[in-house]
Amino acid sequence: MKIGFVNLEELKKSIRDDTILISIMFANNEIGTIQPIKEIAQIAKDAKVVFHTDCVQAVGNVKIDVSDLGIDLLSMSAHKFYGPKGVGGLYVRSGTNFEKIQDGGHQEKNKRAGTENVAGIVGLGKAIEIADENIENYNAKLLKLKNYFIREITSKYENVKINGDLKQRLPGNINISFPGIDGEELLLKLDSQGICASAGSACSSGSLEPSHVLMAIGLESKYARRYTSYNIR
Amino acid sequence: MKIGFVNLEELKKSIRDDTILISIMFANNEIGTIQPIKEIAQIAKDAKVVFHTDCVQAVGNVKIDVSDLGIDLLSMSAHKFYGPKGVGGLYVRSGTNFEKIQDGGHQEKNKRAGTENVAGIVGLGKAIEIADENIENYNAKLLKLKNYFIREITSKYENVKINGDLKQRLPGNINISFPGIDGEELLLKLDSQGICASAGSACSSGSLEPSHVLMAIGLESKYARRYTSYNIR
Repeated sequence: MKIGFVNLEELKKSIRDDTILISIMFANNEIGTIQPIKEIAQIAKDAKVVFHTDCVQAVGNVKIDVSDLGIDLLSMSAHKFYGPKGVGGLYVRSGTNFEKIQDGGHQEKNKRAGTENVAGIVGLGKAIEIADENIENYNAKLLKLKNYFIREITSKYENVKINGDLKQRLPGNINISFPGIDGEELLLKLDSQGICASAGSACSSGSLEPSHVLMAIGLESKYARRYTSYNIR
Repeated sequence: MKIGFVNLEELKKSIRDDTILISIMFANNEIGTIQPIKEIAQIAKDAKVVFHTDCVQAVGNVKIDVSDLGIDLLSMSAHKFYGPKGVGGLYVRSGTNFEKIQDGGHQEKNKRAGTENVAGIVGLGKAIEIADENIENYNAKLLKLKNYFIREITSKYENVKINGDLKQRLPGNINISFPGIDGEELLLKLDSQGICASAGSACSSGSLEPSHVLMAIGLESKYARRYTSYNIR
């Protein structure tokens, strides 16, 4: 098993008769690792299990072809590709059954109650259109910057540790541990130099726990507590 | 029991040892009936039960003082008071416990996962500020228009039936049954004269069932199928 990737053999074995869904992040929000989605989708298909992927980090950063990859359900969030906050999308392959999680009015084919956020929906559509047009140039630029950054930092500081896979990774993500240096302290210093970074995901802000992602890929807590994540934009 | 209002005696009797919540619409979305909220809140308080009210129809249309009324939880939706779609609010009286319904990130005190819709939240705040400033003049104007409208229509068409209470009612709501005339047909004719009305709530659009609200207050289905609702704005 390569660190941070789904073990396909284990996944296959874990499917039971009553398994109805496989759901996996397309790309991780902390270390940017992109999962072998096509292979996972095939395993789901072979087992006649619905396949959902959380593409919140990936949409707008990676080309995604739901037909080619075999995705049944795909979720996304507009603000991750420069669309408005407060609106997301769920792609549903025709014929895929799912239960609503929000009860109430029946107006949207009984699948989601609530008044539609029209401005948000239009914004999401336009943002994805713009992202899609520019994705290749944008990714090429990010990759160049990322590789330059990693080269420079690893040559200057021999103790730093780049977390996550370097190739199967979101083009704009870097996640680095600086042993012996506190993440928050580093952030303050970077900020004073006008450099934006974060010492944890936004959804764990306020938490003092080491990153569960970094712990899961086997880092000792001294690394998992002392990392800094850059999303190049 | 007055038609359309909560029967307070029945409500009291219905509270059991394991009752944890009383939840009621402040004002009905179809017939505009305003419930005796203060009395209901007192019943909840006496029984040590949390009191929630769905104020989606009421906020911006009626002055609401949560302390005076004794409300523990109050929900609202911005688009009902000219704020943006896609954002709502939940007032929580300090010390009131509630379980989150949306799981995930912990950033909002573990009460609601998801990235905050900042623009929407600011829009909601500004909209309620504007609504609150103008509420008295606005209501006086609406009441005058409503009373004029009801007077004219009932004097000209003797068969029409105004549904719901005339006094304990949202200032801008009228709900009328026209026996023998199909609601949808009437809408088309009104529309061709530039008059906006609806033959059902937005959340039941596409439904051919008679209104469950009108059935609940005892109308025969011939009335409940053939009504038209006006929200004067």
